[in-house]
Amino acid sequence: MIRTHEAGTLRKEHAGRQVTLAGWVARRRDHGGVVFIDLRDASGSAQVVFREEDHAHDLRSEYCVRVTGEVRPRPEGNENPELPTGEIEVVADEVEVLSESAPLPFPIEGGAGVSEEARLKYRYLDIRRQQIAASLRIRSQATYLANEVMRERGFLYVETPNLTRSTPEGARDFLVPVRLQPGNWYALPQSPQLFKQLLMVSGLERYYQLARCFRDEDLRADRQPEFTQIDIEMSFVDQDDVIELGEALIGRIWKETLGYELPTPLPRMTYAEAMARYGSDKPDLRFGVELTELTDYFANTSFRVFQAPYVGAVVMPGGASQTRRELDAWQEWAKSRGARGLAYVLVQEDGLGGPVAKNLSEAESAGLAEATGAKPGDAVFFAAGAKAASRELLGAARLEIGRRCGLIDESLWSFLWVVDAPMFEEDGEGGWTAVHHPFTSPKPEWADNFQDHPAEALAYAYDMVCNGMEIGGGSIRIHRAEMQQRVFDVLGISKEEAESKFGFLLEAFKYGPPPHGGIAYGWDRICMLLAGGESIRDVIAFPKTASGYDPLTGAPTPITGAQRKEAGVDAAPKAEAATQG
Amino acid sequence: MIRTHEAGTLRKEHAGRQVTLAGWVARRRDHGGVVFIDLRDASGSAQVVFREEDHAHDLRSEYCVRVTGEVRPRPEGNENPELPTGEIEVVADEVEVLSESAPLPFPIEGGAGVSEEARLKYRYLDIRRQQIAASLRIRSQATYLANEVMRERGFLYVETPNLTRSTPEGARDFLVPVRLQPGNWYALPQSPQLFKQLLMVSGLERYYQLARCFRDEDLRADRQPEFTQIDIEMSFVDQDDVIELGEALIGRIWKETLGYELPTPLPRMTYAEAMARYGSDKPDLRFGVELTELTDYFANTSFRVFQAPYVGAVVMPGGASQTRRELDAWQEWAKSRGARGLAYVLVQEDGLGGPVAKNLSEAESAGLAEATGAKPGDAVFFAAGAKAASRELLGAARLEIGRRCGLIDESLWSFLWVVDAPMFEEDGEGGWTAVHHPFTSPKPEWADNFQDHPAEALAYAYDMVCNGMEIGGGSIRIHRAEMQQRVFDVLGISKEEAESKFGFLLEAFKYGPPPHGGIAYGWDRICMLLAGGESIRDVIAFPKTASGYDPLTGAPTPITGAQRKEAGVDAAPKAEAATQG
Repeated sequence: MIRTHEAGTLRKEHAGRQVTLAGWVARRRDHGGVVFIDLRDASGSAQVVFREEDHAHDLRSEYCVRVTGEVRPRPEGNENPELPTGEIEVVADEVEVLSESAPLPFPIEGGAGVSEEARLKYRYLDIRRQQIAASLRIRSQATYLANEVMRERGFLYVETPNLTRSTPEGARDFLVPVRLQPGNWYALPQSPQLFKQLLMVSGLERYYQLARCFRDEDLRADRQPEFTQIDIEMSFVDQDDVIELGEALIGRIWKETLGYELPTPLPRMTYAEAMARYGSDKPDLRFGVELTELTDYFANTSFRVFQAPYVGAVVMPGGASQTRRELDAWQEWAKSRGARGLAYVLVQEDGLGGPVAKNLSEAESAGLAEATGAKPGDAVFFAAGAKAASRELLGAARLEIGRRCGLIDESLWSFLWVVDAPMFEEDGEGGWTAVHHPFTSPKPEWADNFQDHPAEALAYAYDMVCNGMEIGGGSIRIHRAEMQQRVFDVLGISKEEAESKFGFLLEAFKYGPPPHGGIAYGWDRICMLLAGGESIRDVIAFPKTASGYDPLTGAPTPITGAQRKEAGVDAAPKAEAATQG
Repeated sequence: MIRTHEAGTLRKEHAGRQVTLAGWVARRRDHGGVVFIDLRDASGSAQVVFREEDHAHDLRSEYCVRVTGEVRPRPEGNENPELPTGEIEVVADEVEVLSESAPLPFPIEGGAGVSEEARLKYRYLDIRRQQIAASLRIRSQATYLANEVMRERGFLYVETPNLTRSTPEGARDFLVPVRLQPGNWYALPQSPQLFKQLLMVSGLERYYQLARCFRDEDLRADRQPEFTQIDIEMSFVDQDDVIELGEALIGRIWKETLGYELPTPLPRMTYAEAMARYGSDKPDLRFGVELTELTDYFANTSFRVFQAPYVGAVVMPGGASQTRRELDAWQEWAKSRGARGLAYVLVQEDGLGGPVAKNLSEAESAGLAEATGAKPGDAVFFAAGAKAASRELLGAARLEIGRRCGLIDESLWSFLWVVDAPMFEEDGEGGWTAVHHPFTSPKPEWADNFQDHPAEALAYAYDMVCNGMEIGGGSIRIHRAEMQQRVFDVLGISKEEAESKFGFLLEAFKYGPPPHGGIAYGWDRICMLLAGGESIRDVIAFPKTASGYDPLTGAPTPITGAQRKEAGVDAAPKAEAATQG
C-alpha cells in the first residue's frame, strides 16, 4: 500500500505517529499562512494542516494526494466531536499530487439540486458523495449476509446461463445474435426459473444464486432493463419451509445492517383479505386506514352510480376540510389512474356534504358514518363498479391518504406474507392467465379440481411484502405431468406452445422430478429499502435511465454495417440449424 | 419438509427411530420376497428394505419416492464399511411414489461411455451422477470461500452492468438490440474492466465481484461464450498488495476444499525467464525438463537449419528408444502446430543418431550431450528460427514429453506468479499491440521511456499460474492521462478511436483518479482444477458445446419476423439517438 493508515481510522492514540495517507482533497480552508484540508478516503476523512502555504498551494478540490506527516491532538477548542477523527489532525511534512482534478461538473459535498442526468453521466463523482457510497456499501454488506445465511443452510450456489433459448412467445426477451451460428439467436433470461427447476430435477435439492435478470419492457419509473434477484429453490419442501428460510434470510439482513429485529414468524394474510381490507396484494400496514365494503349497504340504492357489483369506501381523516381545489385534485388523480373520478362525501357535524350526498337516501346518509367508521371532519371516498378495479382504486386512494395526511410512520417496518393468491385471472378475452406462472402448484385442497373452478382456485404461492412493496415472491411448483397438463388446459396453452416455450422442462419432468418450491427476492428493491433510498437507481452502481439509456457510457448506440455483418444479424439460419431447436 | 431425515446422514445411533426419507431409487435388488433399494438424496444414500414385494413392486430406477420406516442395524455380516450409512438399513412401512421416471437415456451409475451430447441434452440426469454433482458442490463451496475472504478484507461486492456500450472496434462483443430505442444496441461485456476502474475513480477503493463475462469468439475446445471471473480492483496499492491478496484468496480455497496448504509467498518468475527455461508464459513446474538455448553453441555451424536467430533444444528422457513411427509422429505433431517439423538427434552410448546428426560438425556432436544435459538413451529435439516461435514450439514439446513420458505428477500443485511481461508485442504489420490491455502501467523503471523502447518495456503485470494454466491475471493500471496518451501513441490508437472505445473512462480520469490495480481469476478454470475435471464444462451447471450450442434447451434458435420487428432489429436509429453516444 502506498499509505500507512486510512484517514478515517486515526484517533487520539495515534498522536505522535508519523503516517502516510492517500485520498482526495474534500475541503480546504486557508487561515493566513496555514491551510487546512480535509483528506477523504473510503474510511472517512482527517484534517491535514499545512503550516506553510507552499505545500498546499496547488491542492484543489478532488485532487488525489498522498500526504506524510505527524498526527497530533487538535489544539484545545478546535476538536470536532461530530467527526470520528475530530480529536486529531495531521501536520503535513510532505505532499504528493497523485493526480489532478479538472473543475467539477457539480460539487461532491452538499450539491442537492444536481440533475439525475448529470449525476449518472458523472456517476463516479456521484459515488464519491457519502450517501451514494453508503448505499453501495449497504448493498455489499447485505450481499455478504445473504451468502452467509445460504451457506449456513447448505444451499449450493449455482450459476445458470445468461445466454439462453429464445422462443417466439417470449415477449420482452432481449435477443442476442450469434456470430458462430449466423441466423440463430440467444435470449437473455427474464429469470432463472426454468433452470432452477431443472436443478431440482438434478437432485441438488438446495439452490441459491444472486441472479442477473433481463427484461426489455416499457420501463416504469423505477425499473431497470437488468436487475438482480436472490434466487432460491428447494426440494421436498412445503410452503412453511420456504417461508421460514425467507424470514431467516431477511431477518439476518435487517438485523445486521439496521439493527432491526424481524418479528418472526411474520404475519400472514390471505390475498382475499389483503384485497378486501387494503385494496392491494401488497398492503402497507404502517398505517391503519382500511377499506369498507358497502355493496350490501347500497344494495337497494336509487343512486345509479352505486348500483354496481361492488361498492366500497375509504375514509380520509380530516378530509372534510379540504379546499375545493384539493377535492378537485383527487378527481384528477383518479382520472390519471384510469378511473372516471372519485365520488366522495364530506362528513360534517350536521350531516353529509359534497356532490354525492344529495344522491343518497336519508337512511343511506344517516348510517354512512357508522358503516365506514368516519367521524365528523372526515371525507369518505367511494369506488363502485367491478370489484377488482374498484378495490384497486380505493387501495391507491388509501396510500395517497396515508401520504397526504402524514399517517405513514417512516421509522416503522411492516413485513408480512400475502398467501393464497388466485391461480388464474381472466385475460379479458374469455380465457385465463396465470397470476404467478404456469408451474405454480394449486393449494393441496385444489389439487384435484382447480380446473373446474378457475376463478376460485388458490395457488400455493407466497409473497413477502415490506412497507407496501413486494420484495419477494415464490410458490410450490407443480411436479406431476398430469397436473401440469390440466393447468395448460385452463390457460389454453397448446401442446405446441408448451413444447416451444418449455419443452425441455416438460421433458425433464418425465424423469422423477421431486416436489419442490422456491422464492425470488428483488435484490435492488431490498437494498433500496435498507439504504433508505427513493429509487433502485440509488443502490445500483451504474444504473440506466427510465428509457434504458446510460448517460455515462452513452449505451445503447447504433451499430455499423460491419458490426451487423460480423454479428450475423441479417443472416438466414441454415436449414439444419433451424431444426436443432 | 416432507421428510424427517436425509438418507445419507443415518447412522447406527438412529436404530429404532421411525424416519421418513425422500429421494430417488438408485439401485434395486430382489431377494425372494425381500427387496432392497438404495434410496439416494443429495446427502448420500441409505438401504431400504421392503419385506413384502408388494410395496416395492412399482419402484423403478430414478422414481422419486417417499419412504417411512424404522432404522435398524443391518444383520451381522451385511454391513458395508464403504458406505457412511453401511451399518444400518430402513425397514419400510409405507412408500409413496412422488413421481415416476421414464426409462433413462443413459444409466445414472457407472455409465462411462455416454456421449457428451447426450449428457448435455439430459444434463439434469447427468448432474444426478455423483461426480458431476460433486463438481458443482465444490464450485459452490469455493464461491462461498471467495466471498468469505473478500468480506474479511473489506472488499465491496459491486455488481456492474451486463448491458453496456457497443463500440465499432469491439470485435467479439455480443450485441443486443433495444426495443425501446429501435436501431440502438447494447453490448454484453467481455469483462467489467472499464467499470471496475470507474469504481476506483469513485473512491470505493476495494471492489470485488463474481462477474459474468461474454465473448463471441471462435470457441476453442475449452471455452464458453459466457464465463465467470472473480474480478478484483484496489486503490492505493502496489503489485505486492494484489499478489498478497491473491495468495490469500487462492490459499484459502485450496486449503478448505482440498486441504492443500499453498506455499506462500509463491515463487515469482519473470516472463523472460519463463520463456527462456520453459518456452511458456505459464510454465508447468510439476516436472523439470527445461529448454536449453544453443544459439551461441551453433554460432558458427555449417548446418543451414541452425543458422538462425535462435536455436534451442529440449531433451526427451529415454527418447532414443522411440520407434521410427513414434519419431515420425513427432513431425506430424509439430506440423499440426504450424512448424515445419521437429529436428532431433538420438543420444547413444557411441555418439549421435537420427537424421540431423550427420549435419553437425564433430565438435558440435561431441559437446551436445553436455550442453543439453542429455544422457545416453535420450532424444534431443531442436527448434531454430525466430526466438518467440521457436521457444513456443519447444515449450509445447516439453509438455508433450512430460505427458508421453509420464513425468507429470498429477498429485502435485505447482503455483507461481509470472511477472514482468512485455508491455507491447509486434502486431505483424509494423506496429505494436498491448500484451495485456492499454490501461496496463509500465513498471516504475519504464515509466518515463517505455515509448522509446517498446520492444523492451516491461508491464506492471502479474499472472497466477497453476499446473501450466493461467488462472489469474492482472496489473497495476495507468492513472495519469499523460502516460495513457503515450501508450495510445505507441499502440497507434487515434484520439477518435480512444474516444469511441473508452472516452468515458478517459473523461473520468480527469477527476483525480487514484493509483490502482487489480486482478481477475478465471473461475471456471479454477473450479475445474479443484474438481479434478478435464474440462470447464464439468463445473458449469448448463454448459454449451464448442460451437455455442446448448443441447438441453436447443439455444440458439432462429427468430421469427415478428420477433425481429418487436425487438427493433431492423430499425434505423433516430438521428438524435445517433448523437447521444
